[in-house]
Amino acid sequence: MFKVYGMSSSGNCHKVRLALEMLRIPYEWHEIDIMKRESRTQSFLAMNPNGRVPTLEVSPGKYLPESNAILFYVAEGSRLLPSDRLAKAQVLQWMFFEQYSHEPYVAVARFILKYLPGDSPRRSELPRLYERGYQALDVMERQLAQHAFLVGDALTIADIALFAYTNPAADAGFDMSRYPGVRAWLERVKSQPGYVEMAQPGPVSATAA
Amino acid sequence: MFKVYGMSSSGNCHKVRLALEMLRIPYEWHEIDIMKRESRTQSFLAMNPNGRVPTLEVSPGKYLPESNAILFYVAEGSRLLPSDRLAKAQVLQWMFFEQYSHEPYVAVARFILKYLPGDSPRRSELPRLYERGYQALDVMERQLAQHAFLVGDALTIADIALFAYTNPAADAGFDMSRYPGVRAWLERVKSQPGYVEMAQPGPVSATAA
Repeated sequence: MFKVYGMSSSGNCHKVRLALEMLRIPYEWHEIDIMKRESRTQSFLAMNPNGRVPTLEVSPGKYLPESNAILFYVAEGSRLLPSDRLAKAQVLQWMFFEQYSHEPYVAVARFILKYLPGDSPRRSELPRLYERGYQALDVMERQLAQHAFLVGDALTIADIALFAYTNPAADAGFDMSRYPGVRAWLERVKSQPGYVEMAQPGPVSATAA
Repeated sequence: MFKVYGMSSSGNCHKVRLALEMLRIPYEWHEIDIMKRESRTQSFLAMNPNGRVPTLEVSPGKYLPESNAILFYVAEGSRLLPSDRLAKAQVLQWMFFEQYSHEPYVAVARFILKYLPGDSPRRSELPRLYERGYQALDVMERQLAQHAFLVGDALTIADIALFAYTNPAADAGFDMSRYPGVRAWLERVKSQPGYVEMAQPGPVSATAA
């Protein structure tokens, strides 16, 4: 059985849970608290030298890191990943967009607001994070104003990858009223069989040293 | 025939050229100068709303952005992409690592040093870029000190993706003497049939306004 090493309140980890739940694939979840540096222990680094969650134990002793590579592995051969060559590449296009143009801004803004103390010096990063985050949401809106899903006519792992941090973007301070296409798409994803909510981060005070 | 819209001195664009040359696939190259904002024109944004190079014209009027999605598309079914399910996901793992943990530091340091004027305020970003860039190179060294290539026993698009900005990392100010495994791997990639050098950026003075 798959074992997922992840933090339940992390969008990157939630992606993996969503795909497994939607495909009804059994798995064991091992909670890793990155705020307690549990992803930097010797035993964790032996699984993933890059020290990041999620990491999937594919089979005993074989580990696969990187949330979107895990999504691809889990979904291959299923309805969540098209077999058509161009459609499959378009799914990857959106997933690389997510990791390069969306997550570093939308997810990091959420991290600073929800995980760090209110007087964190990292708050100075927020204006640039909002500027770039809105650019990414604009790109999504242009697609989702005209299409029900990011690629083709049905939900794929591209939607799961981008859902993970777009759904809590309002909590990260983004004004989602600008994005009717994105909001309708968020509801479409939530209505999929197997959909589960992401856990909320713990109270910020717990992480303030 | 494939058309590639790219900037010859960009590592992300060079990836695509390397894969096409190594696979001996014919293509037309359309030079786009991002310093002259040629990737932000209306006609370019119609091809790729995210306004980035490279973008591949797969067939007339059908465009695929994101360098690593293009690599996957071009390489599918070839020796550059394993068909084994786990090996394919491991190739993607390194490609997502490249876009998330390597390119935003190693490539951006190179951009600041090679494309921006010497008094650019963005030079203040360099200490953090070096810190994170060295972390990425450390992860690569751990793998390449023991393995000839990133996945399996032969070159894949994972190697091409990470070669693009690791090869010019010394020009970006990284001390590569720390990384004998990485340096031996760079030479192995360069010895592949079809290998071509990346163009140098133009003189910095030309970009200083």
